[in-house]
Amino acid sequence: MSELAVRSSLDRLRDRVATVGAPLCVGIDPHPDRLPDGFSPDANGIERFARGLLEVVSEYAAAVKLNVAFYEALGSAGWRVLERVRAEVPPDLFCILDGKRGDIGSTAERYAAGLLGHLSGDAVTVSPYLGEDAVEPFLAYTGRMVFLLARTSNPSAAQLQGLEADGRPLFEHVATWAAERWPDGRVGLVVGATAPAELERIRSIAPALGFLVPGVGEQGGDLAAAVRYCHGTAAPGLVSISRGLSQASTGSDWQEAARVAAKEALERMREADATLGV
Amino acid sequence: MSELAVRSSLDRLRDRVATVGAPLCVGIDPHPDRLPDGFSPDANGIERFARGLLEVVSEYAAAVKLNVAFYEALGSAGWRVLERVRAEVPPDLFCILDGKRGDIGSTAERYAAGLLGHLSGDAVTVSPYLGEDAVEPFLAYTGRMVFLLARTSNPSAAQLQGLEADGRPLFEHVATWAAERWPDGRVGLVVGATAPAELERIRSIAPALGFLVPGVGEQGGDLAAAVRYCHGTAAPGLVSISRGLSQASTGSDWQEAARVAAKEALERMREADATLGV
Repeated sequence: MSELAVRSSLDRLRDRVATVGAPLCVGIDPHPDRLPDGFSPDANGIERFARGLLEVVSEYAAAVKLNVAFYEALGSAGWRVLERVRAEVPPDLFCILDGKRGDIGSTAERYAAGLLGHLSGDAVTVSPYLGEDAVEPFLAYTGRMVFLLARTSNPSAAQLQGLEADGRPLFEHVATWAAERWPDGRVGLVVGATAPAELERIRSIAPALGFLVPGVGEQGGDLAAAVRYCHGTAAPGLVSISRGLSQASTGSDWQEAARVAAKEALERMREADATLGV
Repeated sequence: MSELAVRSSLDRLRDRVATVGAPLCVGIDPHPDRLPDGFSPDANGIERFARGLLEVVSEYAAAVKLNVAFYEALGSAGWRVLERVRAEVPPDLFCILDGKRGDIGSTAERYAAGLLGHLSGDAVTVSPYLGEDAVEPFLAYTGRMVFLLARTSNPSAAQLQGLEADGRPLFEHVATWAAERWPDGRVGLVVGATAPAELERIRSIAPALGFLVPGVGEQGGDLAAAVRYCHGTAAPGLVSISRGLSQASTGSDWQEAARVAAKEALERMREADATLGV
């Protein structure tokens, strides 16, 4: 077995974030209605687009995030594309399979078999709603990571996540649970950049954990806060950009536009990081 | 277009529950390690099993529930099986695609495209953690249904779902939300039979909604409570049995054993229903 195969995903993430110099995670989320001009709105089109995007952004990214929904929307044909795109991810890049699964233990074990076994993800995103049963089967895959949803980036996120129990919003309970139960960094948290005050608060509750921070592009989140707060003492974090790169242009220059957008995102993140000590 | 195609899934569910005389929902959840003797532990094996099970239980069932995880565990090959099994579900049976998806609106739209568009489910299960954004894209498929997770059947369910906000556990907030927002019955709730007191309480909060009640077989839930409380005034409910039927026998009699178990489950539900007036 190669050295790469026996190193934990967390170690590989740490190395790669150090190599590129910023926590840039690029989302490869092909929508058949938003492909470059001339691409067919089907499995062939999304594959051509996803592979072409991966090709130009890999140089700048610490990680890629494949949102399963964008493949699954086309059924088994979409899943075949997902398998091929995942296989094309360079081995030094950390690969998150963003499925937000969450089910009882015996079912979670099947989701883990698909996403961490069959697809060999370095990490998955998991919903906390069912409690610990829903998380443990993913951690049975030694060396992989789980990002548990804490405070998401969408407009209705606070509806349940903001409900206060014992004087603290639900998302803080999730953060405390993860921080106490998995202090070694194997479990991180999804915390949207669209709520920077909550992001700072969750960082103070869970200082050790790595955060996966979506919402900085199209959704209008705070890039500086995302970069500042994503890293934990036990694990580095990631700031995820999806639509900002994948929809940079729909013309014949789409690939160059995505490459430039990735390069600029990386530079902005490096600059944000450099200002931390100011 | 046929009359069947333009009737809502809710109307079809109501008719089918009346026809079979009980709210029996059969889970078709093939695990490669728990197939009958001689079946190969791969996509061929799970397809042979799932289709064989569907064939013998359809007569007794108001609905079938396909848990996506058990197919997805095998990647695109598993999804091909899911597509073929779904196509074999008799048109008068209500078909739930149990994926417990839950993501931001633009992503939920892609899950809806896969599960309600591509796979033509009558209903899906959805996690409430992200709030209303995560639910609405599924309801854009007119006439279909969503079962929102309220109180699940697993051992760690109460960890988050039982946290009290404003003096009421989180699952009651989900029930109140669904009852007030969708009083017409298009949205139902998943409420485990393993917590009969909570089931009764949620029924009182959401009298109109149909409940999908898992947990009565292997998980040890209360069948009589499940049958008593699953139906709402705006929509009928369903009581789901999976492992109790699919693992009735692993011998050469597996199909007959599953058929007998389905028949007996239906009879027990009819009897439980008959005692409601006592």
